[in-house]
Amino acid sequence: MSTVPDDLPEARPAALLRPAGRSRPARVLFDGPERVWEAYRDTLPRALAEAGVLATVSRDLSPEETDWIVYAPGGRITDFSPYRQARAVLSLWAGVELIVVNPTLTQPLARMVDPGLTQGMVEWVTGHVLRHHLGLDRHIRRTEPRWEPSPPPLATERPVTVLGLGELGLACALALTGLGFPVTGWARSPKDERRLARVFTGRDGLAPALTGAEIVVLLTPLTRLTENLMDAERLRLPRRGFVLLNPGRGALIDDAALLAALDEGQVGHATLDTFRQEPLPPDHPFWSHPRVTVTPHIAAETRPETAARAIAENIRRGQAGEPLLHLVDRRAGY
Amino acid sequence: MSTVPDDLPEARPAALLRPAGRSRPARVLFDGPERVWEAYRDTLPRALAEAGVLATVSRDLSPEETDWIVYAPGGRITDFSPYRQARAVLSLWAGVELIVVNPTLTQPLARMVDPGLTQGMVEWVTGHVLRHHLGLDRHIRRTEPRWEPSPPPLATERPVTVLGLGELGLACALALTGLGFPVTGWARSPKDERRLARVFTGRDGLAPALTGAEIVVLLTPLTRLTENLMDAERLRLPRRGFVLLNPGRGALIDDAALLAALDEGQVGHATLDTFRQEPLPPDHPFWSHPRVTVTPHIAAETRPETAARAIAENIRRGQAGEPLLHLVDRRAGY
Repeated sequence: MSTVPDDLPEARPAALLRPAGRSRPARVLFDGPERVWEAYRDTLPRALAEAGVLATVSRDLSPEETDWIVYAPGGRITDFSPYRQARAVLSLWAGVELIVVNPTLTQPLARMVDPGLTQGMVEWVTGHVLRHHLGLDRHIRRTEPRWEPSPPPLATERPVTVLGLGELGLACALALTGLGFPVTGWARSPKDERRLARVFTGRDGLAPALTGAEIVVLLTPLTRLTENLMDAERLRLPRRGFVLLNPGRGALIDDAALLAALDEGQVGHATLDTFRQEPLPPDHPFWSHPRVTVTPHIAAETRPETAARAIAENIRRGQAGEPLLHLVDRRAGY
Repeated sequence: MSTVPDDLPEARPAALLRPAGRSRPARVLFDGPERVWEAYRDTLPRALAEAGVLATVSRDLSPEETDWIVYAPGGRITDFSPYRQARAVLSLWAGVELIVVNPTLTQPLARMVDPGLTQGMVEWVTGHVLRHHLGLDRHIRRTEPRWEPSPPPLATERPVTVLGLGELGLACALALTGLGFPVTGWARSPKDERRLARVFTGRDGLAPALTGAEIVVLLTPLTRLTENLMDAERLRLPRRGFVLLNPGRGALIDDAALLAALDEGQVGHATLDTFRQEPLPPDHPFWSHPRVTVTPHIAAETRPETAARAIAENIRRGQAGEPLLHLVDRRAGY
């Protein structure tokens, strides 16, 4: 995955958006792979109609005809510059690191904030945190009769650290807090978030946020500042034998450093949902490592029903001259 | 496990308790197995001191010397009748089905309500519900590289039924509701509980409570009305392939009927923490069944620190002439 370059073209300010004429339907270009199109070809027009937006959705529009671009990686557009009429590019993905680096993109870019995706992420994170906290693998894998009661500590005695307090990270941190875990959060920029046990921010806050954690959850966006965030040095900060969960982005982890820390015992288990290369190649050591669990990028799938509603709401806003939701800060990278 | 007989001696009414003289310390007899005593020999006197109760705790008191009995199954007392001075029997266990059937017990009986135990139960239930909901076993057991993304439905689409809405059942039902599951609750007696999606009560409410459930959690007390609650007929009510979780009591399930329903496919998986005989005998078919997970009665361990505080509070109340907490209704059996 490429690092975000230091220089990006400025996006056209969203403030320049004007209400569209009411006379003709908005023309929405859907740019994404076939299987994604199949999920949206009915749901998106339905969501637009439900939002009261007069619009047509198509995969075949010339740049001149295109008012809006709904985008998922793997489609046809590599050069966004001919799409001068396009009011914005609306990403179907929450992570926009693949498109934000495209120098031809000058249109405003909105990322997906899908309540279904957030809920799915909360479930994946809560499920795997509880799985490791309770030591479920032992019981799930056991094949011999062995009655050895050793109750786990309570959640209140299990410090968890969540890196990233955006839409997804904060939702997960709050769900874990609700179950009794003392949760430490970390975010790049200062946050006034008092519902968590502790919050650290900025570069200097990383070390105190990680120190002493027994479970670490990676949910920061991938930017040039967070690539290889979990390197050999930072992997040493949590408690020995800690569990690392990565439902965020593969490149947040230095893979070689993680494998070394697993073999050495500093990391007790890693449960990974995202990888530098996906699908994870069959010969990658993560597949066979006894203390790595691979899940195939399922932690947070965008759900067509709820995602289509989010896209429709942004198009409705744009057509009505209202500011778009979830615009990407191109320099920050998310 | 024996069925509760229809006729039980009446307990001495708790109202007859009188404040003790202030001159001498209350004498507390600890009756339970050695390993339990080891957990409480320091914590209980400390909790009593912290509660401001003047008391001594001992394993060796004559019946005449005994003011209070702290009880765990597996101790020395089988005949409670000589303990005429004992103000109450305070159980260290939440489930009192082993002692409530003892015809020599005429003292008031209080069961354990331990906040640590409740919290542990919520964690076990939430962890296993999420495990089954998310299909974690597939990823945990996988040994071959296989990238097959198939995201689970959201919790909002997974109906869960909790049988039993006492201290433990209600806490679990609310935690699952908080994570988005539509939870149906069932209780023996009418409940005005509006925080759950649906509540059914009484004998007639069982069938509608179970019908359509995808995950069923057993947390009713064991009484003559609930023994074999999940028999062949009731196992047919939830959705085909449903998951059964039993952190309650082993005898709530008809074991043979469950094994038949597992083999036939009506039950997709059973995760069991309690059994008719514990430890579960090594030759029991539950150990080797591919769709049964055995956990060794760890869902809710009484935690000495918090349980000792609960006992101390009840002794403080009794000594002060206040009504005891969590008295058992001997006829209902809990």
